[in-house]
Amino acid sequence: MEKSDNLIKNAAGRMVPKTINGVEQVPYMGVGKFIPTGKKHAPSIKSYANYPADGNKQVESLKDALIKAGLKDGMTISTHHHFRNGDLLANLIFDIAHELGVKNLRWFPSASFPCHEHLIPYLEDGTISHIEGSMNGALGKFCSYGKMSRTAILRSHGGRYQAVQDGDVQIDIAVIGAACADSFGNANGLYGQSASGLLGFALADSEYAEKVIVVTDNMVPFPCVPWQIQGNHVDFTVKMDKVGLSEKIVSGTTEITKSPDRLLLAEMTAKFCEVTGIIRDGFSFQSGAGGTSLAVGEYFKQIMKAKGIKARFARGGSNKYLVQMLEEGLVEYILDGQTFDLEGVRSMAENPGHVWTSPFTSYNYHGKGNFASLVDVAILGATEIDINFNANVVTHSDGLLLHGIGGWQNCLFSKTVIIPVPLFRDRIPIIIDEVTTLCGPGELIDVIVTERGIAINPLRKDLIEAAKGSGLPIKTIQELKAEADRICGVPQKQKFGEEVVAAIKWVDGTVIDSVRRVLE
Amino acid sequence: MEKSDNLIKNAAGRMVPKTINGVEQVPYMGVGKFIPTGKKHAPSIKSYANYPADGNKQVESLKDALIKAGLKDGMTISTHHHFRNGDLLANLIFDIAHELGVKNLRWFPSASFPCHEHLIPYLEDGTISHIEGSMNGALGKFCSYGKMSRTAILRSHGGRYQAVQDGDVQIDIAVIGAACADSFGNANGLYGQSASGLLGFALADSEYAEKVIVVTDNMVPFPCVPWQIQGNHVDFTVKMDKVGLSEKIVSGTTEITKSPDRLLLAEMTAKFCEVTGIIRDGFSFQSGAGGTSLAVGEYFKQIMKAKGIKARFARGGSNKYLVQMLEEGLVEYILDGQTFDLEGVRSMAENPGHVWTSPFTSYNYHGKGNFASLVDVAILGATEIDINFNANVVTHSDGLLLHGIGGWQNCLFSKTVIIPVPLFRDRIPIIIDEVTTLCGPGELIDVIVTERGIAINPLRKDLIEAAKGSGLPIKTIQELKAEADRICGVPQKQKFGEEVVAAIKWVDGTVIDSVRRVLE
Repeated sequence: MEKSDNLIKNAAGRMVPKTINGVEQVPYMGVGKFIPTGKKHAPSIKSYANYPADGNKQVESLKDALIKAGLKDGMTISTHHHFRNGDLLANLIFDIAHELGVKNLRWFPSASFPCHEHLIPYLEDGTISHIEGSMNGALGKFCSYGKMSRTAILRSHGGRYQAVQDGDVQIDIAVIGAACADSFGNANGLYGQSASGLLGFALADSEYAEKVIVVTDNMVPFPCVPWQIQGNHVDFTVKMDKVGLSEKIVSGTTEITKSPDRLLLAEMTAKFCEVTGIIRDGFSFQSGAGGTSLAVGEYFKQIMKAKGIKARFARGGSNKYLVQMLEEGLVEYILDGQTFDLEGVRSMAENPGHVWTSPFTSYNYHGKGNFASLVDVAILGATEIDINFNANVVTHSDGLLLHGIGGWQNCLFSKTVIIPVPLFRDRIPIIIDEVTTLCGPGELIDVIVTERGIAINPLRKDLIEAAKGSGLPIKTIQELKAEADRICGVPQKQKFGEEVVAAIKWVDGTVIDSVRRVLE
Repeated sequence: MEKSDNLIKNAAGRMVPKTINGVEQVPYMGVGKFIPTGKKHAPSIKSYANYPADGNKQVESLKDALIKAGLKDGMTISTHHHFRNGDLLANLIFDIAHELGVKNLRWFPSASFPCHEHLIPYLEDGTISHIEGSMNGALGKFCSYGKMSRTAILRSHGGRYQAVQDGDVQIDIAVIGAACADSFGNANGLYGQSASGLLGFALADSEYAEKVIVVTDNMVPFPCVPWQIQGNHVDFTVKMDKVGLSEKIVSGTTEITKSPDRLLLAEMTAKFCEVTGIIRDGFSFQSGAGGTSLAVGEYFKQIMKAKGIKARFARGGSNKYLVQMLEEGLVEYILDGQTFDLEGVRSMAENPGHVWTSPFTSYNYHGKGNFASLVDVAILGATEIDINFNANVVTHSDGLLLHGIGGWQNCLFSKTVIIPVPLFRDRIPIIIDEVTTLCGPGELIDVIVTERGIAINPLRKDLIEAAKGSGLPIKTIQELKAEADRICGVPQKQKFGEEVVAAIKWVDGTVIDSVRRVLE
C-alpha cells in the first residue's frame, strides 16, 4: 500500500502515488502528452554455444526448469491468461516456489482468474509479494481490503506490452503454457486438449524475459507450426500431463443475451452506427464477448445484409457469431486477439481469414502506431461513467477491484467508441458525477447508449449532426444522469481508507488513478 | 583498407584486423569459444502520439521518406536482397542521396547483386563510404582492388542478424521493398508484380533500425496479410510504380544440372546419405538452388520413394523440385528462407506446408539456439577446401571477392555437412593446402564428395564406420589432393598486397579472416 503522503495530483485531477513500491512514477499528463525518451529494454545477448546442440531443451519437470532458470527471492515471474479460468500453471509455479522456500516474488500475469484464489496463502506467507495484473473475485477483494503487502499495478493489455518493452517491468522468468510445442520451444495454442487459440499475451514475455519456459501437454516433433511463440526465445521446455482444464479454457457457452433490455441496447447501438454512416462498405468494428456485444454484432449483420455490404475486418476474440460472419463473407478478416469459444478455435485452425494479432500489433502505445486506431467503431463496456464521459472498468460502486482493464483502454483509440450500458444496475445508477476509478478519459469516449437515451460527447459534433432526424432518443449525458437519479435516488458515496492499494496505469505507463483501500 | 600493422593472429592462425574502420574487433577464438556479454541493441522508445492517428504513414515519394527519416552524412542505410538482380531500390536510394549531396553513407545490404554496379560512381565520389554485405561481380572487383575508401565486412545471413541484434551495426534507415503492403507498413513478398516470396532478410532491419521505410508497388487496404514485416515497426510507407524487375526477381529457370560430372557428384552424395543412414524416416535436409544441389534432392526423392519414407522437413529456398516433394507428401514441411522460382512463390502463397523462417529463427548464433543445428544434413558448396577441411566460399583462387557468405557458415552447424565439389575447375584444383580465405572451420565440415572419391573428416568416426563396405570410393583428403595435383600440377600462389580490403566475420561476430588487396 502507498500512504496518503506519497500522493500527487495528476492532470486528470486524481491523487496518484509518486512512487509505487519505491519506484518513481510519472503521473498521467493527458492523452498523448507524455512522450517517452530512452531506449527499449534490452535483454542480455545469448549464445548458441550455451544451448543444446541438437536443439532439445526439454527438462524433467516444471520444478526442474524453474531451478535451472535460477528461481530466487525477489524475482518477477510472468504467466499468461489464455487458459483463463482453466489455468493450472500459475498455481503450480507458486506451489513449487513455496516448496523451495523462495520468497517475495512479484507475479506478473497478463490477467488472473477466480481459479487463482489458490494463491492467497502465498500472498499471506510472503511467497508472493504482490500481483501486477488484473485481479478478479477473491484476489481482487484481498487487494481491495489492503491485505497485499505491496501495491498492485493494473495495466491494459497494451500497457503490459509497453511496460515490458520499455523495461518498466523486467521479467526474470516467463512460464508460457501452450497447447502444442516442440522440444526447441516453438509453441502455439491451436492443437491439443488445451487448445485456446492464440498465445499473443505471452509475446512480450517471450521476447523480453531473461529466462523463458514453455510448458505443454502436447509435445510434437520439430517443427511445431505455426510458431506463435518462437523457440529461439525459449530456454527450457517441459512436458506435463495437463496444462489446463480444457472445459474451462473456452467456455463454449458464450451466447447472445436474451434479456429484452440488453437486446434493446444492442439494437439502439447498431441503429446509431447505421444512421451515422459508421456502417459502410469496408468498415471495421470491434466488439467483445459479452451478451450485449454479441447482440450488437448480430444487428450489424442484419444491417450489412440488408445493405449488401461487408466489413473489411472485425477485431476481437473470435466466437461462433464472428466466425459465422467470416464464413458468410460479411467480414473479410477477423483480427484475433484471443479466442472465446470452441468454434473460434476450430475456425482459427482452418480459416486463413483469421489474422493473429498481439498486444504489440494491436495495442502497444509505445510503438510506431498500433491497430486500435484503425478500427472504425469499438463497442465497449463500463462499470461507471461520469458526466464528463470518463469511465471506470475496474471497480464497482462499492470500491472493490473486480475486473481487469483488458484491452479496454487501448480500444479507446478507435475512431468511434460506443458504450452501451443500462442506466442503472440493481438500482445503482451507472452515470454519476465522478467515477470511483478513472480508467479512460472522457475525451476518448464518444457515445453512451442507454435504454432511456443516447448521449453523444459534445466533442463529436460530427456524430451529433449525423444523428439529427434519425428518430433515435438523443439526450445530453446530464439528462440521462438526472433520469437515473430520479429513479434510483443519488447514491451514497462509498467510504475508503486513505491508503492506495492499487495503481491504474494509462496506456503510456503514467499513473491515471489510484484504488483506495476499502474499509471492511 | 586496414594496414598490415593493424593485424593480429586469430585462433585459426589467420591475420585479421584489430580494428576495422576504427572500431575494435574480437579476433576469432574457435567454434563456440567467444561467449558474448552485454545487452542486445535497444532501439529508442516511440510513441503512438507521434504517428498518424489514422495509421496512414504513406508519404509522397521515397525521396520524401528519406528526408523525413532524417537522411544525413555518415548514416547507415540498409536494404534487403529479396529482389535479387531485379532490385531497383538500392540504386534509387543512393541516386537520391547523391542528388541531396549526402556523403559518407554506409550501405548495409543483406546482399548485393550485379545490378548494383550502378553504385560504383557513388563509392568513388564519397556518397557511399563502403559496403558491409556480400559483393559480387563489379562491386567485388572494386573492393578487391582496394578502391573502396573504407574496409568492407562480410557476414553470413545469421551473422548479419547477430550484428544488428547485438548493436555491432546500428541501422539509421532501413528501406524495405515489398511486393505487397498497406499504408500502415504491414508488408509481405507474396502478392503482386514484384512477388519474391519472403521478406525474412529484412526482419532484423525492421526490428532494430531507428527509421523504417516500406516501399511497394502494390498498396492494399489495411490489413495487408500475412504481415511478414509488421507495420508497428514502420515509420513511412511509399507507393512506387515498380520496386523490382519481376523477370529478374525469380529467374524461373533454375534447373537441375545436365552435366554428367555434376550428376555423378549428386548421385554419390545421395548414395552416401543412404548408406550412412542419414536418409531415414522423419529426417531433414537442406540443399541450395545450384544445379548439383537440386540434383541431390532428386536422388533423395528416388531413395525415399524406394524406401517408402518421408522427410519431416526440408530447409532452403523453395523451388519447383522441393515443391513437388511437398505436394507428393515426401516432405511434410518446407522451412523457407527465401524463394528461388515462380513455382516456389505460387506454392508458398497456397500451401500451408511452407513455413516462413528468417535469419533469426534459422541462423542467429546469439539466440537461444537456432534451427540450423536441427537439420540432419546440409549439402553446401565451396570455392576451395583445404586438407584440414577448412573451406572458402567468398574468393576464387585469383583472390577476387566474388561471392557472399549467405547462409553457408550458419548451415555448418547441421548434424552432417557435405560438400560435393569437382576435384578441379578449369584445371585449378579445389582441394589445396590452405584456403585463400577461411570462411568455415574444418571441424564443422564432415564430408567432401568429388568425382574421384569421397573424403570423410577424421573427426567423424561414426560416418567412416558407417560407410565401410558400401562400395563408395572413400579416400583421405590428402589422397584426393594428391590426385588433383597429379592432374593439374600444384598451382602457383596468388600474390596479394599487404592491405586488408575486407574482413570475414564468423557467426559470433568475431573476425575469422581477412581479404587482401589484389594486385591489378
